[in-house]
Amino acid sequence: MNAPIGVFDSGVGGLTVMKEIMRQLPGENLVYFGDTARVPYGSKSKNTVCRYSRQIVRFLETRQVKAIVIACNTASALALDEIRDETSIPIIGVVEPGAVMAANTTKTNNIGIIGTDSTIKSGIYNKCLHKINPEITVVSKACPLFVPLVEEGLWEDRVTEDIAGRYLHELKEYDIDALVLGCTHYPLLRRIIGREMGENVKLVNPAYETAKSLKALLTEKNLLNTIGIDGREPTYDYYVSDGVDKFISFADDVLSCQVGKAEIVNIESY
Amino acid sequence: MNAPIGVFDSGVGGLTVMKEIMRQLPGENLVYFGDTARVPYGSKSKNTVCRYSRQIVRFLETRQVKAIVIACNTASALALDEIRDETSIPIIGVVEPGAVMAANTTKTNNIGIIGTDSTIKSGIYNKCLHKINPEITVVSKACPLFVPLVEEGLWEDRVTEDIAGRYLHELKEYDIDALVLGCTHYPLLRRIIGREMGENVKLVNPAYETAKSLKALLTEKNLLNTIGIDGREPTYDYYVSDGVDKFISFADDVLSCQVGKAEIVNIESY
Repeated sequence: MNAPIGVFDSGVGGLTVMKEIMRQLPGENLVYFGDTARVPYGSKSKNTVCRYSRQIVRFLETRQVKAIVIACNTASALALDEIRDETSIPIIGVVEPGAVMAANTTKTNNIGIIGTDSTIKSGIYNKCLHKINPEITVVSKACPLFVPLVEEGLWEDRVTEDIAGRYLHELKEYDIDALVLGCTHYPLLRRIIGREMGENVKLVNPAYETAKSLKALLTEKNLLNTIGIDGREPTYDYYVSDGVDKFISFADDVLSCQVGKAEIVNIESY
Repeated sequence: MNAPIGVFDSGVGGLTVMKEIMRQLPGENLVYFGDTARVPYGSKSKNTVCRYSRQIVRFLETRQVKAIVIACNTASALALDEIRDETSIPIIGVVEPGAVMAANTTKTNNIGIIGTDSTIKSGIYNKCLHKINPEITVVSKACPLFVPLVEEGLWEDRVTEDIAGRYLHELKEYDIDALVLGCTHYPLLRRIIGREMGENVKLVNPAYETAKSLKALLTEKNLLNTIGIDGREPTYDYYVSDGVDKFISFADDVLSCQVGKAEIVNIESY
């Protein structure tokens, strides 16, 4: 089935997930939507994030997508359950795959989670991890300055190191051996976070496992694109709610996604 | 005329302007709207900020306001001219009053401006200052991390000092003697900014002059509230698009505004 897969995020961070989907499912057409007009989601309430996510799902439905990936931890945490009941399109988030990966990684059963305020407050990672294994202990910490620091390009900077030291300090008091990067911006700070946590802590990026889950879902529902894999290039379409040029330059330079062009969508009208 | 005055901002920052209006116009009823669901505006495009501002003006019209103050530099910079033509309600922003105050402050005719990305890119302060006095030289610098640092409460922190040092470094190479705090969050960093710039540079907070301009406007249009000044307490109503509790706690603790309660508005429906 050659209908595209819809991928959405509050902004540009979800491109890290998009990239992993391109890698693991090279025969699939993809449509990306970044809600750059209303970014960030990480400080917003459940109601608001649900309303925004619903509008995006409605928009993606008009692009005839066959499946949807919520490539944003906050929207996955706050809106996935609500939205799943409202659409007939199969939909997955990044939280459950991230939790599965963390549970498979840990040996000590002590897992750390970092994310936005709203993701951490939702307690969703704890819930998912305890469902997988009730023995797992979860320590979590919101890191609200990481997103603006990433967006300012301070990925390797003493200020980011200083802030990371404060956020991660208390996590180090627990014997965790896996740390979930529970926000799509955080893999870009992987080096600083890795240095701070030390080599005994594995950093878990949910993107890889999300793409794997998506593949399993498409296979199960018989939705894989088997028509056009040979020779044909897949199509990648990009939509944003604001700031096309800024989006393209961030995406092209930083995530080496070769976005090329993107279109503005008035998402509030959906 | 005892109809209220509408004051709006992208979030909580505009409360610094609201407070000054309360002080200078103690007999006026006020309605505040903070667009906390779509904050920040400082990284958004003109189109988007105009659309959002228009919706807020429509909402304030339903509260029967007699005048509107755009208590947000970015919205004043990008949307005031457009909106002024679309409503019959008298409307002012913070940029022009800020420019007037800076022009009255400087002796060297060298003025510095700091603000969000969108405010600085708009070049609006330069335009206003050159209209007042073509001899004035303007040096400007966007400080995108100041807003998240303020919202994290890091008003007196080595990280904020470090970032302020980088942003303000180049301004110090010019012989400026006045620096406009061109974003309503920045007065909360007044101490760090002041130390960095030195005592020969006066920090200009547009809030004071904005309240003064508002008073002049109401007087000119014969709109001052002369009915209920004696004894009666004015009413202050607060509306936000998301996160009532967070708004109230920020406002009460930080700006000592005694907000008490606030109501959610679905601003996208206006």
